[in-house]
Formats: sequence, structure tokens, C-alpha cells
Amino acid sequence: MRRVFVADTLIPGQSLVVDGQTGHHFARVLRLEVGETLVVSGANGPHAAVAVSVDGKAGTATLAIGDPTPRRDPKVRLLIVQAMAKGDKVDEVVQRTTELGVWAVWVVAMERTVGRLTADRARAKVIRWQRIAEEAASQSQRDVVPQVAYYRSAQDLQTPLARLTAHRVLLLDERETKRGIRQALNYSFSEDEQWAGPVVLVVGPEGGFSDAERAWWADTFLAQSVTLGGRILRTETAGLVAAAAVFCETGELGG
Amino acid sequence: MRRVFVADTLIPGQSLVVDGQTGHHFARVLRLEVGETLVVSGANGPHAAVAVSVDGKAGTATLAIGDPTPRRDPKVRLLIVQAMAKGDKVDEVVQRTTELGVWAVWVVAMERTVGRLTADRARAKVIRWQRIAEEAASQSQRDVVPQVAYYRSAQDLQTPLARLTAHRVLLLDERETKRGIRQALNYSFSEDEQWAGPVVLVVGPEGGFSDAERAWWADTFLAQSVTLGGRILRTETAGLVAAAAVFCETGELGG
Repeated sequence: MRRVFVADTLIPGQSLVVDGQTGHHFARVLRLEVGETLVVSGANGPHAAVAVSVDGKAGTATLAIGDPTPRRDPKVRLLIVQAMAKGDKVDEVVQRTTELGVWAVWVVAMERTVGRLTADRARAKVIRWQRIAEEAASQSQRDVVPQVAYYRSAQDLQTPLARLTAHRVLLLDERETKRGIRQALNYSFSEDEQWAGPVVLVVGPEGGFSDAERAWWADTFLAQSVTLGGRILRTETAGLVAAAAVFCETGELGG
Repeated sequence: MRRVFVADTLIPGQSLVVDGQTGHHFARVLRLEVGETLVVSGANGPHAAVAVSVDGKAGTATLAIGDPTPRRDPKVRLLIVQAMAKGDKVDEVVQRTTELGVWAVWVVAMERTVGRLTADRARAKVIRWQRIAEEAASQSQRDVVPQVAYYRSAQDLQTPLARLTAHRVLLLDERETKRGIRQALNYSFSEDEQWAGPVVLVVGPEGGFSDAERAWWADTFLAQSVTLGGRILRTETAGLVAAAAVFCETGELGG
């Protein structure tokens, strides 16, 4: 069943007219057909829906909204702060971690990042990543599309990150040999309610974090360095594996 | 530090002459230089080593073997049985799960597999996958290179799999909604010693398992279906995520 995302609050029994960019997407890109059933995920979660009219020329569609469908997203909000990397590595991180259920992916140029982006390139990349996230969210049956952002430096993300009042900020650091991710998470199954803030996983670039970066994260966000065990994971694998560990530990991989 | 793999049993203080394909690989592909230090992982685990002579023309190298270096592989042996898939998806599964620490990857054509291989193509693919596994094992500092194999059907892998006397065989099945992977694993930290047999994770093709396949795995290997939670993961993501969950649960991701 196709799953699409809208910003509206959905009311069962009412109809929803989508136009603008979203309407164009429904009518012309997805080629929605009259009578087709789908799941529409709005501001208040996923709902069953039927297409009652589609105007391909105008790029509009009208949907009859049905009952809510079960929510599928993890309760734990997970933010991946991913060092910018060369080639299509970040594309893959966005795709995979979205599938798995992360809440947001912030890409940041770190000291040893190879492949920094100009402002123009960054804008184009974020649009591309957001589209990849939307496709992955649809295919994996997510409730929301993760937010994707690009920051030119860690300093640039300081204010937005501080606003989130994170529950934990964990640096995946190959230098750390003692503190495992489970230990740092220190999750007990009774404390669900206390996790108002997200868990933040910071993934370094291929060359690793600099000492200045380690100190900045520790000083600014009380970040703890954690190990993922004896194997050295590449930057495009580490975030996904750490996210799987967090979801496993918090009962989000099927309990 | 470079890490290379040999079949020999290594003895500290002795020298090791490598020739044949391995010698060619050392001398001509890796372009090993005299005096270069490296880690050589042999039948008895990883050891420090220094290249004492290299003959590029002949394709031979002599290494002085030093002390053992710490083992890094997980205690739990994990076998991924991955449904054959189109394109380079299996390449990626081999690469990523090797990094993470799996013991073997067996690729099998399942009922709904798109992209079956002829015998010739299968031979070429296995060579390619084995090379990918070796590179990933080297870069992630593994002790061994996972074994990669291709089977034309599940029936073809019945005998070799039965020989392994697996500890658990778990089918990652999007139809399963109740039994989570942690629950099926039912791991307690005191039982390390009992895990003589590997844990087997069976990953279905894009179209999912057929009912006949579900029945065959349950009947033949007492396989349990498990869920990885509410999100639907693609075939090339599911094995890595499930492996991360198993390693997390068994304390292999840094405790």
C-alpha cells in the first residue's frame, strides 16, 4: 500500500484537497488513480484514504480520509549527526537510517571532512536528501519523514541542537575502548516517559574526530564517547549500526 | 595499519614466506615495502609482522612474525543467509556485515528471488564477494575473512547448514508481528560458553518469503520467525540491522 505524507491534520470522514507541490506529486509523479486506496500520514499520524478525484493537468487530488492506521515510528527520537562524506555515502546514510526509524539526520562538515559543500551545492543536496528520506519513509511505512539539514560547521548546529534538550549525546569514537553504547544509554524499560529529548548519535568523518572536536562536543553538549566494539566501522555504516543498537536496547526492534 | 590474511599458523620469532596467489597479492597488489609493519592474521589469530624482503617480480614476500595482537572478532558466530537480490545489493550486504563482524554470508536463490545466477555467473560472483569480504575484513580489523558461498536453492544448503548445528535459526519475516529478535535470541550473559553453534539469520528477497519457504525453514531447521519492529526494512538493510541487534544483545558492540 502506498504511503504519502502531508502537513495537514487529518479528520476521518472529511475530504482533503491537495494542490501545489504536493498535489503535483500525487497527481503527476505518483500517478494516483481514482478509487486507489493509500495511507496518508498527516500531522496527527497515518490514516487510511481513498482518492476520490485526481486532476493530472491541474496537479490536484481529493482524498477521502478514513480511520487512523497504527503508528509505526519508534517512541525514542533519534537524531543522527553525520559527518559530511564524499560521493553518495550520505545519500545512503539518509536512506538506511530513515528506513530504520530515525527522527532526523543532520549532516555537518567536520574538521577532517573531505567534500565540503558550497552554499549552492548544500541547498541542492538537502533537497535531494529530503527526497531520499521521503521515499524511504514511504517504503518502510514510517509515520513521518525525518528532517534532513546541512550545517557548515559544528558551531552552526550548536543553537538548534541546544534547543532540543537532548536526552543523551553520544560520540561514536573509535578511540574509545571502554564505554559501550548500551552502557552509555543506560536505558531501563520503566523510564520511557522521561525520554522527552532525543538521543543524538554523532558520527565522525573517515579521518575520525580531531581532539578539538572531541573537547568541543564534551564541553558544549556533555557528549560521551562510546565504542561499538572491536571492529572499525566506516562512517556510512557506523550510524546505522549505532541506531540499530539504540532501537534494540529500547525495545523498538520488535521487543 | 594494514591487515592481511593468511592460512598459515603463525609462530612469533619465525619468518613466513608467502608465495603463490597470496605472495602476488602482497608484493604486487598491496605493494608491500621492506620494513613495513603490518598485522597478519593467520589460522591462530592476528600477529604483528614486519616485511623483511619483497620480490615484486617473483611475487613473493618474507615476513618476520611478532607477537599476537588482540583478537577483535565477536564470540558469537553469526551466519547471514541472504536471499539473492538484483544489482549490487548483495555486494553491499557482504561488505557491511563483514565490517560488523559476521562469521559467514551464504547467498541463496529463494522462490521470489529476481536475478538468479547461472553456474558460471555464480562462480564469478562468489570470487567477487570473497574479495569484497577480504577488503572489508582488512579495513575493519577483523581476525578472519567471512566465508561467502552461493546456493542455487535452500535445499542445496540444507546439508551444509545442518552440519553447523546452529544455536538459533531466525527468519526475518515482515509477517511476524509478535516475536522480536531479542526475545527469540533469549540471550543471558552467563551462557556464553553454550553458544558452540552459530546464530543463523535468514533474510528474504524483496517479495518476501513464500508460505512454502516459511514451512520449509520451520520444519527443516526449527526456524523461528522474528520481527524487527514496525518499519519495513529492505532486503539489503535487514541483515545488517538484525546482526547489529544480535551483537548488541550479546555484548559485542562494546558492552
